[in-house]
Amino acid sequence: MTDKSWTAECENRIRASFAKQGLMATLGATLGRVEPGRVEIELTPKPAISQQHGFVHAGAVSAIADSAAGYATLSLLPLDTSVLTTEFKINLIAPAVGDRIVARGEVVKAGRTLTIAQTRVVAVTGGTEKLVALLVATMMAIRDRDDVCE
Amino acid sequence: MTDKSWTAECENRIRASFAKQGLMATLGATLGRVEPGRVEIELTPKPAISQQHGFVHAGAVSAIADSAAGYATLSLLPLDTSVLTTEFKINLIAPAVGDRIVARGEVVKAGRTLTIAQTRVVAVTGGTEKLVALLVATMMAIRDRDDVCE
Amino acid sequence: MTDKSWTAECENRIRASFAKQGLMATLGATLGRVEPGRVEIELTPKPAISQQHGFVHAGAVSAIADSAAGYATLSLLPLDTSVLTTEFKINLIAPAVGDRIVARGEVVKAGRTLTIAQTRVVAVTGGTEKLVALLVATMMAIRDRDDVCE
Amino acid sequence: MTDKSWTAECENRIRASFAKQGLMATLGATLGRVEPGRVEIELTPKPAISQQHGFVHAGAVSAIADSAAGYATLSLLPLDTSVLTTEFKINLIAPAVGDRIVARGEVVKAGRTLTIAQTRVVAVTGGTEKLVALLVATMMAIRDRDDVCE
Repeated sequence: MTDKSWTAECENRIRASFAKQGLMATLGATLGRVEPGRVEIELTPKPAISQQHGFVHAGAVSAIADSAAGYATLSLLPLDTSVLTTEFKINLIAPAVGDRIVARGEVVKAGRTLTIAQTRVVAVTGGTEKLVALLVATMMAIRDRDDVCE
Repeated sequence: MTDKSWTAECENRIRASFAKQGLMATLGATLGRVEPGRVEIELTPKPAISQQHGFVHAGAVSAIADSAAGYATLSLLPLDTSVLTTEFKINLIAPAVGDRIVARGEVVKAGRTLTIAQTRVVAVTGGTEKLVALLVATMMAIRDRDDVCE
Repeated sequence: MTDKSWTAECENRIRASFAKQGLMATLGATLGRVEPGRVEIELTPKPAISQQHGFVHAGAVSAIADSAAGYATLSLLPLDTSVLTTEFKINLIAPAVGDRIVARGEVVKAGRTLTIAQTRVVAVTGGTEKLVALLVATMMAIRDRDDVCE
Repeated sequence: MTDKSWTAECENRIRASFAKQGLMATLGATLGRVEPGRVEIELTPKPAISQQHGFVHAGAVSAIADSAAGYATLSLLPLDTSVLTTEFKINLIAPAVGDRIVARGEVVKAGRTLTIAQTRVVAVTGGTEKLVALLVATMMAIRDRDDVCE
């Protein structure tokens, strides 16, 4: 199997897993670019995902940032392995307002059991981008568990 | 004004603010007990808020945990002040499955500008409770901003 | 072996490990109470552990808070297992000044591989205590590694 | 005043503040490059700063990572302002062993009151570098406080 075919298989697997995340559909989130170690997820601000001031709720920002970090991690793991978030911290740097909110997850350090991944979340308005949040997460690889499989 | 009337006014304000959080309605979250320094928010697991294994998505757990911590903070602040989350960290301790997911926010240390609040999230199944997540957040009091008011 | 003897063996092991932490001696930290799931470490403020304003440096506070969380975790693990901190977050709530700084670590949720532990750090001045920091950590149990053993 | 003179004044102020951090001298830490928004602090592993397995203690790694993030923040603030860490999270990615441990702090987003800064800590062994820790901190600018001045 060439690298190319593996990458395609890996991308397919991530897209299939994303499609099973009910919350992503509920939030209206879409999966963007999927590359080895890097995954993007997008959200369009709307009242259904707002907090009390009309900004996108920190929970919705966290949801796409966490999923982007998780799939960035999954993209580097063997196909018989899945991923759970053990913890994340998110700094909410500016109100999440704009045309689109884009979460860009990337692996900082891949490990056999634990992987550290980071997501920068930007608000895109017209042609400009503004950093709105920074998430750092510890992801855990799960093998051989019947209750956790895809 | 007595303490009793103040508490009522404060609780009303929190319930009105919660009603404006579009994301809470979208997730099906409900506001439970509101007391000085303590606020509960509940969620019923369902496919619309799931991750790929069927558990409640970390983003949905984070959303109610963050809001519970934020409203616990708001309950101790003057009525002309609102609250923004500047950062939180959440440890996801066990899969969020059960009859109900309950986030119990409480203030650890109230400050003029910054307040530290903590939320324990439990899964309730039958009569038993299990800790599923622990969030610690830094909340910032916002005064005199026309773009942030309720 | 009774519970009592196990506890004694466990406490001895923690005291021996603490004695090997060169940094604790360098900071002048001392190990206080050691109980199943709870460990205390103390520090006396002095210029050698200060930051630029004369308070105890956040790094020194973090060091005893992290060790207290780690030993609280170790107190619940089998004797052939050791512990490494994978991550912690610390909220620095008030300046660390006083007669003594006491870090009280306790296990929030023990797990086979990962344990969540929390440390409350208080400043003791005369008879009163003030919360100065709150740490939440993920600890990892390490088995069967020749390079990590006690 | 030109940019050049300001930078020199700012660097001098950071070097003077670092010299007042008793803990840095106690750990044997030295201040490296100081640039606008970026500051490096170094440490040489030795028994006096170790944990029980002989690695550099997470507390010592955190101390230089926190100070590097704090001084990176201070480098962008007016001269009448000082900085306190309100919180940080650190992921400990690999054991801190090597010839030198270097903490590279940089500002992610500067704000009037709160600044987000990040520090990558690497272990340098021979000519190679390895990432050992990642810290993200919220720094608070302090103005007009008699008890906090330099």
